[in-house]
Amino acid sequence: MTAEAARRSRRAGLASCNGTESIMFVDDFKPTDFTLTVQTPQLWRVAFNNPPVNVIGTAMIRDLKLLLTELETNTTVNAVVFESADPDFFLAHWDLAANPAETEALPSPTGYAAWVDVLVRLSHLPAVTISAIRGIARGAGSEFILATDVRFASFEKAILGQMEVGFTALPGGGAAGRLPALVGRGRSFEILLSGEDYSAELAEKYGYVNRAIPDAEFSAFIDAWALRVSRWDRRVIADIKHYVNKYTLLADEEFPPQSDAFWASAGRPAFQSINEQLFERGLQTRGALEYDLGAQVGAIFPRDVTDA
Amino acid sequence: MTAEAARRSRRAGLASCNGTESIMFVDDFKPTDFTLTVQTPQLWRVAFNNPPVNVIGTAMIRDLKLLLTELETNTTVNAVVFESADPDFFLAHWDLAANPAETEALPSPTGYAAWVDVLVRLSHLPAVTISAIRGIARGAGSEFILATDVRFASFEKAILGQMEVGFTALPGGGAAGRLPALVGRGRSFEILLSGEDYSAELAEKYGYVNRAIPDAEFSAFIDAWALRVSRWDRRVIADIKHYVNKYTLLADEEFPPQSDAFWASAGRPAFQSINEQLFERGLQTRGALEYDLGAQVGAIFPRDVTDA
Amino acid sequence: MTAEAARRSRRAGLASCNGTESIMFVDDFKPTDFTLTVQTPQLWRVAFNNPPVNVIGTAMIRDLKLLLTELETNTTVNAVVFESADPDFFLAHWDLAANPAETEALPSPTGYAAWVDVLVRLSHLPAVTISAIRGIARGAGSEFILATDVRFASFEKAILGQMEVGFTALPGGGAAGRLPALVGRGRSFEILLSGEDYSAELAEKYGYVNRAIPDAEFSAFIDAWALRVSRWDRRVIADIKHYVNKYTLLADEEFPPQSDAFWASAGRPAFQSINEQLFERGLQTRGALEYDLGAQVGAIFPRDVTDA
Repeated sequence: MTAEAARRSRRAGLASCNGTESIMFVDDFKPTDFTLTVQTPQLWRVAFNNPPVNVIGTAMIRDLKLLLTELETNTTVNAVVFESADPDFFLAHWDLAANPAETEALPSPTGYAAWVDVLVRLSHLPAVTISAIRGIARGAGSEFILATDVRFASFEKAILGQMEVGFTALPGGGAAGRLPALVGRGRSFEILLSGEDYSAELAEKYGYVNRAIPDAEFSAFIDAWALRVSRWDRRVIADIKHYVNKYTLLADEEFPPQSDAFWASAGRPAFQSINEQLFERGLQTRGALEYDLGAQVGAIFPRDVTDA
Repeated sequence: MTAEAARRSRRAGLASCNGTESIMFVDDFKPTDFTLTVQTPQLWRVAFNNPPVNVIGTAMIRDLKLLLTELETNTTVNAVVFESADPDFFLAHWDLAANPAETEALPSPTGYAAWVDVLVRLSHLPAVTISAIRGIARGAGSEFILATDVRFASFEKAILGQMEVGFTALPGGGAAGRLPALVGRGRSFEILLSGEDYSAELAEKYGYVNRAIPDAEFSAFIDAWALRVSRWDRRVIADIKHYVNKYTLLADEEFPPQSDAFWASAGRPAFQSINEQLFERGLQTRGALEYDLGAQVGAIFPRDVTDA
Repeated sequence: MTAEAARRSRRAGLASCNGTESIMFVDDFKPTDFTLTVQTPQLWRVAFNNPPVNVIGTAMIRDLKLLLTELETNTTVNAVVFESADPDFFLAHWDLAANPAETEALPSPTGYAAWVDVLVRLSHLPAVTISAIRGIARGAGSEFILATDVRFASFEKAILGQMEVGFTALPGGGAAGRLPALVGRGRSFEILLSGEDYSAELAEKYGYVNRAIPDAEFSAFIDAWALRVSRWDRRVIADIKHYVNKYTLLADEEFPPQSDAFWASAGRPAFQSINEQLFERGLQTRGALEYDLGAQVGAIFPRDVTDA
């Protein structure tokens, strides 16, 4: 299908269901750090694509906010798959070289800090949100998938973790608020306190992801699952989301204090020092440090202690 | 043991513990769609037996309500096993050919809709309720086992699922309220949104059942487990049920709105159309459709969309 | 390292971080039923050592209370490992030969019964509490590990269970309040109602422990995990504990009624009779009964019933 044919097909699909606003949105939307594909009018796919390791920076936040604004009122899209163009890095983590002032200057309909605004709104979308995780999702990348409705992981390729403790910080996007509903009390403590990497196999055991799927079957599984769900009646999707959220979703106001705790830590010399040391060793480049960050944060943590 | 000897033995057991009321109940109780066996005065067994596929119809509801009324005041029975006479179908689902007016006309001590009345009362019984699942438990059949205290499944024979989404309906018996306490937030979404079948193996991984037991060991496991539990002191069973319920059981009033949402959907043309199409293809007969209903609802969902 | 060198090293480490109070505590503290080892100033290790089977008696409670008082105000210790000197018995259970009056006469800062005081305070410590379970942890021993933040178990050596139901009693230390946040509703019922033993493998499946680790790797795993966590910034540990506790820890006042229920049962003739029978068969000696107590309580439960 040529680009123009695809565009016509998409317009036709959207026009039949959703009026002109969504056509305008899709045609006008030019995100820089991810791509948006209209697989069907009911099923959209977002592929993160911010080389070299898919960090979450200001441009990605800006475009995610625009996408959320569209999805909040779109009455056709029933399911959104979030995946990555890079098979090794789903979303490495927050862009630690970004200027927080720029990110925080973006519009925030909730009034919350930028990352909280994104995740709280993501968790309230009418569409089913599906994380299809191949590669590494650490820190804010892990928080993103925790804020979607379901999480499927490539058995061989997915790695998850909340390594913020190694930066002397509580995760700022609410991992401490979302993990308990998935993995229970003891494993929430373990994931947050260790900051270590979790394989898809262990993540499935814990409930950190719904299921680990062999990588050879992963694409077909996601395609079939997402297409099936996207075709259901919109009203029953709304009912299911309403009730499961009622019993399992924390109140929005639980999240800003966790974000405040993160930013308080981020302003301290210890955080800055670790950050600098990690950039010297290759943070945010496609090298050994990013592949092994869960273990490495423990190795460089700069304490002046006399332990063996 | 002859029938008369069994009857005398049962009378003796009951008389020593429970007065004359229970003797009268057991002797007079003639359920049509399940059998009641008094294994010991403390341990009763209910075997669903409504060929061809064990649907939950008006007669079964009527007799379950009578059984619940007895168990609510019975001070001898400590444990009740729910199993099926049919090794392929535990409880296929709600009887979609039944006349709702007849079912709803049955007495409802809680004042709730018929199925909510059954499940809410089931969840409050003083006796330990044990689902021994061999065969398929979908839809309302899955909701029945979710309302019991514990669930054991035959590794090879059990299949669970909430396929209501494929009928354009929220499950009406509270699956959205009971799954989160067993499988957590993400897997509750998955089970309800996909409507797919879950093998015992995957159901065990998720916590949808307590444990999957190899079918060759299943009967012996259930017999030993239920007998052991039925012999404990009644007061400690009451204490355990009180505290675990206190921390994990939703308030009764959470369930009627889910039932209302189901019946609202059931009155819509889309539900009726799917229902008719499925009956044409063999619904509620012992054939391919019922064995594979989780997948099939996705195949026939009647949407007029242009997706690939 | 000689004892004197170790003492000097410990003093030096403590002095640099924590003032003179902790030095005095460690040097003066002479627990009889466990040992306290200062691995680093940030990482303490407690090894239960009360032969023949590590029951939880008055002296152990007394010394645990002293340790808790120190840890509540200590601003250096970031992690405490609880392990056992005995590879077969982590903590067998409450000392059923102890005089409750003596245990209850110990100081109780919370005002709660002795065991509730210990476990509630344990669950609120600023340090990360880690159960490293090799051997049997039943009854109050299981409740101890449930009150710590994380639980790792030797795959081959660990056995867990709440066998109190076999004594006609609700667990008194809050197992019914802590299990649901780890294993969910159905498996909480199962563990408490069956009173059976759980292997590390099954306990991991259920979330009763975080993870089962092959015994050959167990010590190295615990050493690395605890050392890593103990070295993080104290403030982020506090943040993580605050938020995970906020969403998953029951209010303290939930626990005294469960303790009251236990002691009410313990005063009844049935409990006393079972207790006596078990002592006659070798309770609290290093023999077959203690190794197999989960199964044995079911065998001796003294009911006068006519069941088959």
